[in-house]
Amino acid sequence: MPKIRKVLVANRGEIAIRVMRTCKELGIATVAVYSEADRSALHVRTADQAIFVGPPPSRESYLVQQRILDAAKQAGADAIHPGYGFLSENAAFVRACEAEGLTFIGPPASAMDSMGEKTRARANMIKAGVPVVPGTTEPIPSVEEARAYVEKIGFPVMLKAAGGGGGKGMRKVERMEDFESSWRAAKSEALNAFGNDAVYIEKYLEKPHHVEIQVFADQYGNTIHLNERECSAQRRHQKVVEETPSPILTPELRAKMGEVAVKAAKAVNYVGAGTVEFLVDVHRNFYFLEMNTRLQVEHPVTEWVTGLDLVAMQIKAAEGEKLGLTEAPTPRGHSIEVRVYAEDPSRNFMPSPGKITYLRVPGGPNVRDDSGVFPGYTVPNVYDPMISKLSVWAPTRREAIARTQRALSEYVVKGITTNIRYLKAILAHPEFIEGDYDTSFLTRQHDALLGAEDPKLSEMALLASVVHTYQKDQKRAKTLPAASGGQGGGNGGVSPWKLALRARR
Amino acid sequence: MPKIRKVLVANRGEIAIRVMRTCKELGIATVAVYSEADRSALHVRTADQAIFVGPPPSRESYLVQQRILDAAKQAGADAIHPGYGFLSENAAFVRACEAEGLTFIGPPASAMDSMGEKTRARANMIKAGVPVVPGTTEPIPSVEEARAYVEKIGFPVMLKAAGGGGGKGMRKVERMEDFESSWRAAKSEALNAFGNDAVYIEKYLEKPHHVEIQVFADQYGNTIHLNERECSAQRRHQKVVEETPSPILTPELRAKMGEVAVKAAKAVNYVGAGTVEFLVDVHRNFYFLEMNTRLQVEHPVTEWVTGLDLVAMQIKAAEGEKLGLTEAPTPRGHSIEVRVYAEDPSRNFMPSPGKITYLRVPGGPNVRDDSGVFPGYTVPNVYDPMISKLSVWAPTRREAIARTQRALSEYVVKGITTNIRYLKAILAHPEFIEGDYDTSFLTRQHDALLGAEDPKLSEMALLASVVHTYQKDQKRAKTLPAASGGQGGGNGGVSPWKLALRARR
Repeated sequence: MPKIRKVLVANRGEIAIRVMRTCKELGIATVAVYSEADRSALHVRTADQAIFVGPPPSRESYLVQQRILDAAKQAGADAIHPGYGFLSENAAFVRACEAEGLTFIGPPASAMDSMGEKTRARANMIKAGVPVVPGTTEPIPSVEEARAYVEKIGFPVMLKAAGGGGGKGMRKVERMEDFESSWRAAKSEALNAFGNDAVYIEKYLEKPHHVEIQVFADQYGNTIHLNERECSAQRRHQKVVEETPSPILTPELRAKMGEVAVKAAKAVNYVGAGTVEFLVDVHRNFYFLEMNTRLQVEHPVTEWVTGLDLVAMQIKAAEGEKLGLTEAPTPRGHSIEVRVYAEDPSRNFMPSPGKITYLRVPGGPNVRDDSGVFPGYTVPNVYDPMISKLSVWAPTRREAIARTQRALSEYVVKGITTNIRYLKAILAHPEFIEGDYDTSFLTRQHDALLGAEDPKLSEMALLASVVHTYQKDQKRAKTLPAASGGQGGGNGGVSPWKLALRARR
Repeated sequence: MPKIRKVLVANRGEIAIRVMRTCKELGIATVAVYSEADRSALHVRTADQAIFVGPPPSRESYLVQQRILDAAKQAGADAIHPGYGFLSENAAFVRACEAEGLTFIGPPASAMDSMGEKTRARANMIKAGVPVVPGTTEPIPSVEEARAYVEKIGFPVMLKAAGGGGGKGMRKVERMEDFESSWRAAKSEALNAFGNDAVYIEKYLEKPHHVEIQVFADQYGNTIHLNERECSAQRRHQKVVEETPSPILTPELRAKMGEVAVKAAKAVNYVGAGTVEFLVDVHRNFYFLEMNTRLQVEHPVTEWVTGLDLVAMQIKAAEGEKLGLTEAPTPRGHSIEVRVYAEDPSRNFMPSPGKITYLRVPGGPNVRDDSGVFPGYTVPNVYDPMISKLSVWAPTRREAIARTQRALSEYVVKGITTNIRYLKAILAHPEFIEGDYDTSFLTRQHDALLGAEDPKLSEMALLASVVHTYQKDQKRAKTLPAASGGQGGGNGGVSPWKLALRARR
């Protein structure tokens, strides 16, 4: 396949800029597309060329396949990078690109087909020998059959929409009395969200961690994994903080999960960058959740510890280059990413679009800012309000936490409300510092995190070292000194990290 | 020695902020000092506390030892970090700190004494078996004795002031006819600059590279080196671009120079971070130049490839902690730093202080910005006009060059003139890309660099790959395709990289 000379990036915001940065470093020309709401957006200014594709919302511009294809032809682009979201996991779009002679920088349509619909993905994974959460592989037609199935696998169970993700149509059921009403609610939510009321059932795992494996494959079947990312800090099924390595993985578990992820990718003849998501339960059993057939938002933490440029690798794979690696590079140190949003945590995380009147971003050693905003930019109200991904690297997890706090403390954003203080509270929470936080962490600690005082850096660092010493002493601490006081949420206004400090004194 | 709890940073600008960042990550409180001209400076806003120490120029504020000591006592600081410049290499200040019971974060006064005055440092190094440039170890009292000495070692020679550095009182002499007038001029310049007209003589080396070795020692004599930095891109003896690894060092030469640098540090019972500067000639002989007994401006490139935090290591060494490493970590990848100045290259690099009305700094993968400025800040006209150090990391030198260009292209600085375009021209110059540039590079290519068009990133990256392929083909290319055309400086307005591209087509 010939070298790619000009890439149209079919996305907006930080990820469009992320892709363009690598294109520039590779000497590849870049084309932006933009909606009416994005006329003055940074991704437009970053590209060599920009083409208008319609008004917001996205379904009238960024999601209109023909407009994107026309833009690519108009600009003379030879390839399209979809970023994440939008058309990135749309198999029909991949086929349309191919029909137009455009290189789609991503997996083949067939791999998307195999992984796109959840029940089909499950079935494929079971066939490939990949462990999945006990549950039905197909949508269940009637409530009676559903009841019978649940009696077999036992409560708690999760009801999930077959047609989509993001928490829509998802329901946990604890006992038979609630089953029928939950079943109906899930189906109606699924219908509203995805136009498809199919629902399937999964065993609900206790204290599960969301741990995902980055995989990468070339066009010749060479497939490797690039270790894991711990993404259990989620709010309403949206990741807020990600890190690598996962604090709960042993080298043996990492190797095993990596092997299984590679098996999953090979089973669908995957090409390029993909992510196999797993749930890991308290017994450290792991189960396939889904595969994201695209670049992941949180890919920077993997780049930090491996030294790789995943976007460059995607482009080279699309050009037909052979994968240079035969296995994952040994991960070096620790990386954490936090997602900075234009939102108001104290008002139920309501988006807070508006004009950024002043902006100073963190800098210094091992701090990376992936952002789509600039001073004077107006954050529009029609798109996801993430304004930046802040990621750091440090030799150890403890140092990475301290560095993230330091970097967060350097942000100055005026004109809009952000979740920066909330992010600081997460990183200062003993449960996060100890490292064994499951996917319910942010929900359980909601009040404590919102009520937390802005942690002082000096005390935060002290806490981290307290915890570190404590962990060293106890080998693997089951509970933290302040865990009993810090978990309740109330604490009379005293933040958990303060309690931890007090317990140590 | 007890843990340090509060550090006064006796400096300003980016280096004060650099030190404070690490202090914050370690949970150490920070105290800034500031002059009248720095009331609204970023280092003041970054510190937990700030104390006024007098008006500009520095000799009435930042250089007044008693004011700094008083500020430390007033703030209750237990340690002082001097940064670089100012009081950082002042042995009397180190003794004054000790007398006040303050920990000086740096080497002991005795090591500064041994390395501070150049002729004394030379004599000490000769005694320790460290190779030095052939020349006199003591100032030469009379022009007659100087003549006699030069007849012995042969032309060309350098005359150098014994009392100071930075190019003042430095003169190259090519033949005996010019000797006496140069001798007089050097002495009078030295007297004016340093209040001391002592001059010594050194053999002038041909096409020398400035390659320096980072060393580090704890209080117990454990001394290691942390590899080299190539700093040959200098303008008037001021470094402009630095990188590591040096493109001209073989593993054997690196090991040998590292060993000698450790020997030099041990000879003066060094403690903490220090840099042993060498000149490496065309035959790859290396000679001790001087030792900088402090943190170096260009320390970030070493941090990038080693993953170490040199400031944290300095603090731990000052606390009496034992060095955890027994040898240099294997360097990983390549790092380049460029110094961004508020200056106008087209007006003889005249400083261009003034208000920064708009600022957008580069971001994305593996880009580090160490800066002391912010949007709305007025760069004062009384201090060094460096506004930022931009450093990058990449797996290979070629990728690091492309990344530096990409990052430089992202800078938006309004209100003042900067040297950003000049920096781009340096990195796009075939001599730089080839990697064998000596200390005369920027002077020889002065006109070409100033006349260069702003390189287009896509063409620049293409050039880099051309050179890369060329080098691969030729193993070690002696000259570049366009070298003959590109070296002259004139080129009829065509920039060297364009010529190189043309040669390839």
